[in-house]
Amino acid sequence: MQTVIIGSGNVAYHLAKAFTQNNIPLIQIFGRNEEELKKISEELDIPYSTKDLTDADLYIICVSDQSVETVSKLITKKDCLVAHTSGSLPKEILIGEYRKSSFYPLQTFSKSKDLHYSKIPLFIETENDEDQKTLTDLASKISENVMKSDHEKRKYIHMTAVFACNFVNHLFSRAKEISDAQEIPFDYFLPLIDETVKKIHEIEPKSAQTGPAVRNDTRVLELHEQLLKDESLEIYKTMNHSIKKMYEL
Amino acid sequence: MQTVIIGSGNVAYHLAKAFTQNNIPLIQIFGRNEEELKKISEELDIPYSTKDLTDADLYIICVSDQSVETVSKLITKKDCLVAHTSGSLPKEILIGEYRKSSFYPLQTFSKSKDLHYSKIPLFIETENDEDQKTLTDLASKISENVMKSDHEKRKYIHMTAVFACNFVNHLFSRAKEISDAQEIPFDYFLPLIDETVKKIHEIEPKSAQTGPAVRNDTRVLELHEQLLKDESLEIYKTMNHSIKKMYEL
Repeated sequence: MQTVIIGSGNVAYHLAKAFTQNNIPLIQIFGRNEEELKKISEELDIPYSTKDLTDADLYIICVSDQSVETVSKLITKKDCLVAHTSGSLPKEILIGEYRKSSFYPLQTFSKSKDLHYSKIPLFIETENDEDQKTLTDLASKISENVMKSDHEKRKYIHMTAVFACNFVNHLFSRAKEISDAQEIPFDYFLPLIDETVKKIHEIEPKSAQTGPAVRNDTRVLELHEQLLKDESLEIYKTMNHSIKKMYEL
Repeated sequence: MQTVIIGSGNVAYHLAKAFTQNNIPLIQIFGRNEEELKKISEELDIPYSTKDLTDADLYIICVSDQSVETVSKLITKKDCLVAHTSGSLPKEILIGEYRKSSFYPLQTFSKSKDLHYSKIPLFIETENDEDQKTLTDLASKISENVMKSDHEKRKYIHMTAVFACNFVNHLFSRAKEISDAQEIPFDYFLPLIDETVKKIHEIEPKSAQTGPAVRNDTRVLELHEQLLKDESLEIYKTMNHSIKKMYEL
């Protein structure tokens, strides 16, 4: 199957790399950013173009949510399969006479970091069973966790990831703000953070909960509220309220 | 120095283990829970008692915040040093005619898990320089990160840990609630969570932020708000508001 990746960002790079490492040939990587395309092209030995989108059986669009629709219109071929890689868009966002699909890797991508793609879950949605099989077979070559998922389900997956990834990272930012203000190196908290995450590989997060809220330690909760202000105070109150509700305290 | 640990919970166990592994003798482990004491005593080859607190130079109290004061009164010896291990209590919580101190390991403890104590930061507070040196020397034998810290600073350390550990774990609980309701295995999110944490070992959390709020992606934010309710919706709004404030969106 002749496959093209469209895009030159982190998702495009890591997907192209995973394909290449698993001996799945890519006939082109296509995009606007020539500098980035050139780097990927040289590293992974894939032809690139910024102008002429080549004929293929499968196009995988790896661009930002806002650009998916526009980019999808560049594909004028009819007898082919097109997939976007967005967690929150329906496959119908794709505009063209081809068969539409979604190929969603659940991960946070940054170009500089090495990723083990085999552990990254891939969620697939297509118009028909044949395309489903094609994409599932392809996805299974780069990942151990391939799952069928319609747009409805994908929305929830994406939202779960916002809680488990984006919000978690923001808590780290607010935590660092507090420790920076006291001149306590944030690095000191990394073993604690690592352990927190290691735990949930073994036990349910609900059983792993510790801290003043789940102990209903009013003295500490009140003390902390006096030390905090603005957004951090709001987060503190909201999270503690939610913890108390979950454990019926 | 003759050292006794008081308590039989997770903090007591891991601290006793770290001492033993680093060839620091403990002359007794003392507590109420005979069953637990016996287990620790056998595993680490330390004498235990539930009745007779032995004479020592240093007592380290590893019990819950609520019990520290009561337990501290059991120590009737005068010429000795007593430390509690709480992040949120002042050393003056200790009631007795001995010298008072705090020996605070920054970690989330669960008995079943192996810990690398050498990476765990230890925060020390004492009444005088000599005791500070004694406890710092002792702590340096089991940890690479030993830091002086008065009660004021310790309060902030503990609060930072609440954000970076307790609240993070609660986000995992709420995330799992969402994915469970959609019959999506929570395990699928573990690679994403691991990557999120791996990132902040290398870059500042503020620079690592991704997701709809920092992109100011109103479409996705509104979609998610429609899918959520109760505490999860409150968390969603509070966190996004805080993200937008931090990035001045």
